[in-house]
Amino acid sequence: MDLTYFDYKYSFPLESGASLPGFRLAYTTRGTLNADRSNVVWVCHALTGNANVADWWGGMVGPGKYFDPATDFIICANVLGSCYGSTGPLSVNPATAKPYHHAFPAVTVRDIVNAFDLLRQELNIEKIRTCIGGSLGGEQAVEWAILHPGLIDNLILIAASAMASPWCIAFNESQRMAIEADPTWAENCDNAGLAGMKAARAMAMISYRNYDTYGFTQALDNNEQLDGYKAAGYQRYQGEKIVERFNAFTYWLLTKIMDSHNVGRNRGSILNALGQIKARTLVVGIRSDLLFPPSEQQFLARHIHNASYEEIDSLYGHDGFLIEFRPLTTIIRKWMQAGESAIAPPINRDTIGTEPVNQ
Amino acid sequence: MDLTYFDYKYSFPLESGASLPGFRLAYTTRGTLNADRSNVVWVCHALTGNANVADWWGGMVGPGKYFDPATDFIICANVLGSCYGSTGPLSVNPATAKPYHHAFPAVTVRDIVNAFDLLRQELNIEKIRTCIGGSLGGEQAVEWAILHPGLIDNLILIAASAMASPWCIAFNESQRMAIEADPTWAENCDNAGLAGMKAARAMAMISYRNYDTYGFTQALDNNEQLDGYKAAGYQRYQGEKIVERFNAFTYWLLTKIMDSHNVGRNRGSILNALGQIKARTLVVGIRSDLLFPPSEQQFLARHIHNASYEEIDSLYGHDGFLIEFRPLTTIIRKWMQAGESAIAPPINRDTIGTEPVNQ
Repeated sequence: MDLTYFDYKYSFPLESGASLPGFRLAYTTRGTLNADRSNVVWVCHALTGNANVADWWGGMVGPGKYFDPATDFIICANVLGSCYGSTGPLSVNPATAKPYHHAFPAVTVRDIVNAFDLLRQELNIEKIRTCIGGSLGGEQAVEWAILHPGLIDNLILIAASAMASPWCIAFNESQRMAIEADPTWAENCDNAGLAGMKAARAMAMISYRNYDTYGFTQALDNNEQLDGYKAAGYQRYQGEKIVERFNAFTYWLLTKIMDSHNVGRNRGSILNALGQIKARTLVVGIRSDLLFPPSEQQFLARHIHNASYEEIDSLYGHDGFLIEFRPLTTIIRKWMQAGESAIAPPINRDTIGTEPVNQ
Repeated sequence: MDLTYFDYKYSFPLESGASLPGFRLAYTTRGTLNADRSNVVWVCHALTGNANVADWWGGMVGPGKYFDPATDFIICANVLGSCYGSTGPLSVNPATAKPYHHAFPAVTVRDIVNAFDLLRQELNIEKIRTCIGGSLGGEQAVEWAILHPGLIDNLILIAASAMASPWCIAFNESQRMAIEADPTWAENCDNAGLAGMKAARAMAMISYRNYDTYGFTQALDNNEQLDGYKAAGYQRYQGEKIVERFNAFTYWLLTKIMDSHNVGRNRGSILNALGQIKARTLVVGIRSDLLFPPSEQQFLARHIHNASYEEIDSLYGHDGFLIEFRPLTTIIRKWMQAGESAIAPPINRDTIGTEPVNQ
């Protein structure tokens, strides 16, 4: 699908105190904005995702899927700092006429959402009916719901958290150490650090899956083997795949963005921040998620005023949000229907008896 | 404590088909072998451990501890392939008069145990009263009990498995990929691959701990932080610590030894192998162990004939075997006492009524 570009031409302040001299966001839209502009679905992508939501979430978005271009106007924008069309470390720095590389400033989830919000204004969208995301995508969605209470009607957070856990930061730092172990990382060229990024991605796959995923999908060929294990080959395969489509600068930046995710920053506390959310909210946890365990989603649901919590089983751990389309669709459909019936005209209570029925 | 050395001067065949032209094992003994040579406790160490058991298991071994030199003769030998006095990749290859480095052959847990068994013969030990180990140490202990049924009276396996899981192999391969990302790894010098090994060790720490360990010990300093997280610093600290005391060749070799651990290899099946164990066996799992989850210890206990299973809680995950001295001591003491009363002179049943009492 063709990307559309939004170019913001003014200085863009970042949470760190640095700023970008403008930025570009690549995005896609599917479907048609209806007359009262009330059918916007904004999908936020995760770490190495992109704006072409059908690439990575075809089971949730598309003709006949829950989010359907026949009725919905579906937007997905590549995050600031990524390498799929939006401004990131491989973009040219206007000040030097060379790619930023190591000079690209630190970005946060809040910065990403502030950039998205400028795109939203450019598109004359005043209401987002549903904002949805998993993992880093869910972190964007929850930030947006705090930054602009009233903008989002329905907020759906899958396998996401209110702040990065020390555990998640430890995973990310180990991956950055692997990138640093590759001395080409010190260079200012697009291919810097690729060998390190392979190891980083292999490590990340472990955090996205779990013991049972590997047990079922990468079992030993036989008991006689002394080497050449399938699980080892799988790790290398994942490393090779990522270098074909990503760069180490963006990988590094995005893991840092994950680390600094904290909705409580400069808002008094995390509870205070979550308390500002006005959107009707659905939080979905994945029972086998090692990286963002269900306790983090339960925490979100407990401290967002109008929130429901659902949990799904998956063999795939954290990656379940990219795979478990059927249970996700069932849960979202049911929750959306409950929301629609809740805003139906109130029942005339005069016709109802005062005794509790089936209570 | 001073190391003693055992030099085996004959060709030593390895499971891979390669052989070593002899080897050295560094070992320690504590206490005195009693007259009937019946008080031997053999402790097997884990991945980066050494023969000086008080260095890493002072809570289990020593004066006043459960394994006490006052009554026990406690042996611990550095594994073949390690770098704490035994023959390994940094040892001089007699064929070239240079260190082996990349030329050191693949070793398995079974090879380690075959080398230990030669040391045992050298020491004129015909019975091991108790053989105990955690993690890779437990893998050695279970292999020994299969290789020489009748040698070990009491076998204690903590946080160990019958074979390396695909999950464990995936962790290890990711760590080796990090070592490879460091191009000095290609060199044949003692310091090759150290930057990569730092990242590898950081990854390993994640597998040894868990979400709660990091949550409790590496919590954020405050909600305002944008960088410099404690958990990230901890990962770097662990990387720095390992390069002070280890080398990447040994690290690589030992992770490969973990990968190829499979008691079923060339023994028909894993169940057949475990069925050959004659030792009275205690298996201990750690509820929070991510790397060797309790299901692996339950499997061992289910398929070893005379086995008991106990599980402990720990904040520390897999590393609990190096930390939870109090519950380990309690469990081991109770189990040893039960074994001693079981071999007490049989009760004269003529004096006991035929009715079941308290049944």
